[in-house]
Amino acid sequence: MTPGLSKNDIIEYSSNIMIYIDKRRRRLLKVSKDKIFSSDRGNIKLDDLVGLSYGSRVKTSLNINAWLLKPLLIDYLELGIKRVTQIIYPKDLGLILILLGIAPGSRILEIGVGSGNTTIVLANFVKPDGHVYGYEIREEFIRVAQSNLETLNLNQYATLKYRDAREGIDENNIDAAIVDIPDPWNVLDPLYNALRYTAPVVFFLPTMNQILKLFEAISKHKGFIDIRCYETFLREIELSPESIRPSTAMIGHTGYIVYARKIFKDSDVKA
Amino acid sequence: MTPGLSKNDIIEYSSNIMIYIDKRRRRLLKVSKDKIFSSDRGNIKLDDLVGLSYGSRVKTSLNINAWLLKPLLIDYLELGIKRVTQIIYPKDLGLILILLGIAPGSRILEIGVGSGNTTIVLANFVKPDGHVYGYEIREEFIRVAQSNLETLNLNQYATLKYRDAREGIDENNIDAAIVDIPDPWNVLDPLYNALRYTAPVVFFLPTMNQILKLFEAISKHKGFIDIRCYETFLREIELSPESIRPSTAMIGHTGYIVYARKIFKDSDVKA
Amino acid sequence: MTPGLSKNDIIEYSSNIMIYIDKRRRRLLKVSKDKIFSSDRGNIKLDDLVGLSYGSRVKTSLNINAWLLKPLLIDYLELGIKRVTQIIYPKDLGLILILLGIAPGSRILEIGVGSGNTTIVLANFVKPDGHVYGYEIREEFIRVAQSNLETLNLNQYATLKYRDAREGIDENNIDAAIVDIPDPWNVLDPLYNALRYTAPVVFFLPTMNQILKLFEAISKHKGFIDIRCYETFLREIELSPESIRPSTAMIGHTGYIVYARKIFKDSDVKA
Amino acid sequence: MTPGLSKNDIIEYSSNIMIYIDKRRRRLLKVSKDKIFSSDRGNIKLDDLVGLSYGSRVKTSLNINAWLLKPLLIDYLELGIKRVTQIIYPKDLGLILILLGIAPGSRILEIGVGSGNTTIVLANFVKPDGHVYGYEIREEFIRVAQSNLETLNLNQYATLKYRDAREGIDENNIDAAIVDIPDPWNVLDPLYNALRYTAPVVFFLPTMNQILKLFEAISKHKGFIDIRCYETFLREIELSPESIRPSTAMIGHTGYIVYARKIFKDSDVKA
Repeated sequence: MTPGLSKNDIIEYSSNIMIYIDKRRRRLLKVSKDKIFSSDRGNIKLDDLVGLSYGSRVKTSLNINAWLLKPLLIDYLELGIKRVTQIIYPKDLGLILILLGIAPGSRILEIGVGSGNTTIVLANFVKPDGHVYGYEIREEFIRVAQSNLETLNLNQYATLKYRDAREGIDENNIDAAIVDIPDPWNVLDPLYNALRYTAPVVFFLPTMNQILKLFEAISKHKGFIDIRCYETFLREIELSPESIRPSTAMIGHTGYIVYARKIFKDSDVKA
Repeated sequence: MTPGLSKNDIIEYSSNIMIYIDKRRRRLLKVSKDKIFSSDRGNIKLDDLVGLSYGSRVKTSLNINAWLLKPLLIDYLELGIKRVTQIIYPKDLGLILILLGIAPGSRILEIGVGSGNTTIVLANFVKPDGHVYGYEIREEFIRVAQSNLETLNLNQYATLKYRDAREGIDENNIDAAIVDIPDPWNVLDPLYNALRYTAPVVFFLPTMNQILKLFEAISKHKGFIDIRCYETFLREIELSPESIRPSTAMIGHTGYIVYARKIFKDSDVKA
Repeated sequence: MTPGLSKNDIIEYSSNIMIYIDKRRRRLLKVSKDKIFSSDRGNIKLDDLVGLSYGSRVKTSLNINAWLLKPLLIDYLELGIKRVTQIIYPKDLGLILILLGIAPGSRILEIGVGSGNTTIVLANFVKPDGHVYGYEIREEFIRVAQSNLETLNLNQYATLKYRDAREGIDENNIDAAIVDIPDPWNVLDPLYNALRYTAPVVFFLPTMNQILKLFEAISKHKGFIDIRCYETFLREIELSPESIRPSTAMIGHTGYIVYARKIFKDSDVKA
Repeated sequence: MTPGLSKNDIIEYSSNIMIYIDKRRRRLLKVSKDKIFSSDRGNIKLDDLVGLSYGSRVKTSLNINAWLLKPLLIDYLELGIKRVTQIIYPKDLGLILILLGIAPGSRILEIGVGSGNTTIVLANFVKPDGHVYGYEIREEFIRVAQSNLETLNLNQYATLKYRDAREGIDENNIDAAIVDIPDPWNVLDPLYNALRYTAPVVFFLPTMNQILKLFEAISKHKGFIDIRCYETFLREIELSPESIRPSTAMIGHTGYIVYARKIFKDSDVKA
C-alpha cells in the first residue's frame, strides 16, 4: 500500500469507481468478479483493480492509460443516475442550495421527485441529521429515484412518498422547499402550511406561461414575500493546447427559478 | 405566542433580523436597545420588535408594511457581509459546491480567503464536523473575513491563516480545494501535496490570460486530470403585474471556473 | 495634402468629426468657428483642425494624443443621436436587417418611430433608391427623429408620419416591416394589408406578457406563417495588456424579436 | 392573377421558391419541369406551381397544407447555400454590418472567403454600386463561394481572388474590411495599406489564444485605434400554444469579433 493511504482509499470488490481514459471516455461502475470494462481504447479486467488505490493509473488491453477515480457527486449526476424525467442541472441546483439556505440538518420538502436527481443533491447536503421529504404522483418514478438514492448510499436521508401534494403535506415546520411540478399554483396552500415561518421555497418552471400563472397565484395568495425569478446559463470552455475556446454546444434553457419566502398572512399577524 | 411557534422563532435582543419593506428596501440588523431602523418609508423602533415572531408584519412610522424575516445565507451574502475584495457570487459558488463534492464533514482548503465570502458558504455546508482551512497573505483581509464568519456564527468551522500558500500547506488528505488568487500556477505543488487521492480542486480566475497560463501549468504538472473550464451567467427576471421581463442590468462576467482532480503522478503509481 | 487623399478626406468647417482620445473619451461634433473641444485631458481649438485629413493625430492643450476620425454609423448610434425613448440596439438591429431581407432599394414600414434610431439604420441600408415609412403617434418624438435623421444626412430616405398605424397604413406592397409599439396585436390588419406577398415583419417587445399576447393574436389572424422568436445578447471583451476578459457590465435584456411572414389567407388563395 | 400582383409575383419555371410545410419542413428549390418535391408529408409536382403567386397555399399528395414563399436572404443563409467551412452566423454578421458602417456603394475587402456566406451578405448590402473583393487561398472554396453567389444572383457584386492576402492586396481606399482567417496578425500590413483613412476592420476569431495574439500584434502595429472585442449570443424562443419557452438547443460560441479603425501612423501625421 502506498504510504499515507488508509484502508478506504483502496479499491475492493463492490467499490464504486470511475474509469477515466479521456473526456469522452469516463465510466462509472461497481467492481465485481469476472467483469470486464470494455471500450474502443481497450479493455480492463476489474478483478485486476482490487487492491489498487484510487488515483492509480493502469493500462488497457490496447496499452492506453486509464485512471481509477473515486466518484464524486458530479460524476454520479453526470454518469451514474438513471433519468426518466427532465432533471434540474447542477448550474441551477447549486444556486438553489444557496437560495434555500440549506445546511447540514435541514428538513427539506420536495414536491415532484421525478428521477430523484434533485433528491440526491439535497440529501447529500443535509445529511446526516437532516432529511428530505419527497412527494411524487407517478409510482414508477419513485422506484427509479429510490434506486438512484441507493447508488449513492443516500437513501436513509430521504423519504419518498407516492402521494399527491395538492391534497396535503404531512410534514410541518419545514426549513425549505423545492417544487418541480407543472402546476405549482395548485400546491400553494399545502406548501404554505408545511413551511416554517419565513422559510424559503423555490419553484422550477420551464415556460413563460407558467411563470405568469405562478406569479399571479402567489401574488393573490398573500402568504409569500420577496418573490424573485432567475435563470442561469452554463457555458463550457474547451481546453486544448493552442485552442482554448467556449464550446459550440450549450444548453440554452432548462427552467426558470422562482423564489419566495413565507410570511404570516394578515390573519396570522400578532396583534 | 402564535400556536406552533417555538422559543427560537421569537425575536429577542441580539437576534439577527431582516426588515423587508420591498425589493429595494431590505435591511439586515441586530436587535438592540434604543436602536431605530430608519428609511424613506418610515422608521421602526427595534425595541418594539422584541417578542414578535419571525414572519410578522409591522407598520413603519409612515404606516407602511414591513415584514420581519429570519435572515438566510443568501441575505447575509447580499446584505450582511463586509466586502473588501471582489467576491465569488452565488451563481458560481453553488456550482462549485457540487463540482467539489462538498458534504457535511468535508475538510476543505481555501487558498485566497479575501473577504471570507466563500469561506462562509463552505463553512455553512461542511458544519458541524467538517472544516475550512483558509490561507491569505493580506492580514487585513483575514480580520474582515473573521468578522464576517462571526456575523453568521460560523467561525468555529474555519481556521484562517496569515500565510503564503506558495510556501507550503500544513494540511493533508484534504477533500477538496478552492483557489482564488491571481497566480494559481505558483501553488500547484503545495496544493497537490495537500489533496487526498483523486480529490477535486476549483480555480477561480477572471482573465483569459490566466486561463491560458494555468492550463499550460496544469498540463505540464502531470498531477491532475479531468481538467475542465466553465463560466456561468445569472439573469434576473423582473416580476411585476403585466410586465414580466428579464432585467436590463446583468453581470456579464466575474470569473472562469477551472476544475481538475488529483491523480498519482507516474512515480506514485503502484507497480 | 497627404498623397492619395481626396478632397473629402479633408476636414472642413461643418464637417462631422469624432475626436478620439481613449475608449472613455470619444466625442462627436461638427467643426465650427471659434468652437473649443474641452475634456479633462485638455482642449482642442476646432479651427486648428480645418485642413487636416481624417485619421490624423493632434495634441490637446495638455499634450495628450487625440485622433480625428470620420464618424461611422456605429459612432452616431452610440454618441451622436438624441434619445427620448428606449432604442433597439445594434446587436438586435443587425440581426433584424438580415431577418427582414433588407437591401438597397427596399421599401420599409416602421410602426413606432420613437427617437428614430431604427429609422436611421434602415435608411442607411435602403438608400438611395429605397425608402422608410415611419408611423408615430407622439408628435414630439417625430421632431427628435427628424433631427436625428438630419444629423446623418439621411432625411431624404425616410418619411415620418404623425399618424396612428392602428387606424390604417397608406402604403402597400411594402417589402418588410418593423413594429416597435407596446400593443402590436392592434395593428395586425393594417400591417397585413400593407405588406407585399410573403414579406417579413419583425416585432420588438420587452415583456413575456407581450410575447404571449402577440403569439396568440398572430396565430388567430391566420395571415402569417414561419413565426419565430429570438433574443440576442452582446458581451464586450475588455482588451488590456495582460488582462483580456469579458466586461463585468452587460445589458441583460432589451427586447424579444418576433418574426413572421405574410401569406395569403384562405380567402386569398388562387383556386 | 390575384388583383394587385405584378408579373414577378408569379411563380415561373426557374423561379427560386421556398416550400413551407412547418418549421422543420422548409425547402428551397428552383422550379423546373417534371421535378417533384417529396417529403414525409406528401409530394408536390413543381409543374403545378407555375402560374401561382407567391404566398399561395397548396396541398401535398397527402392533403397537407404547404405554402409557397419567395426566399429571403435568411432563407438562403439557412437552407440554400453550400457550406464547406465554418461560417459566420447572422447574429454576428448583422452586428458586423453596423460596426463596419456598410452602406449601398461601399467597397469592402474580405480576407478569407470560405464558403462565401459572408460574401453573400456583404454583396447584398453594398449592391448595386458597391463591391466586395474577396481573397482566399484554397481554390476549391472559391468555386463553392462563386456558386453560392450565383444562387442569389449576387455574383456581379463580388470579385473572388485565388490569392494569399499576406502577400499583398491589390485594392486601396477600401471602406471597410472583414478578416476571417486563422492568423490575422500576418495580414496587418497589407490590410492597413488597403484601408481608407479611418476605415474600420473586423476580425472574426474562435479562440482565446488568437484574441491574445491579435491584440498584441495590433497594439504593436500602431496603425489602428478604438480596438474592441465582442461576442454575441442568440437564443431562440419556442412558440407553441400554452408553452412559450427558450429553446434547449443553443449555439454557445462561434467566434469573437475584434474591431479596430485605421489611423495614420506617426510618420503619416501631417505636421
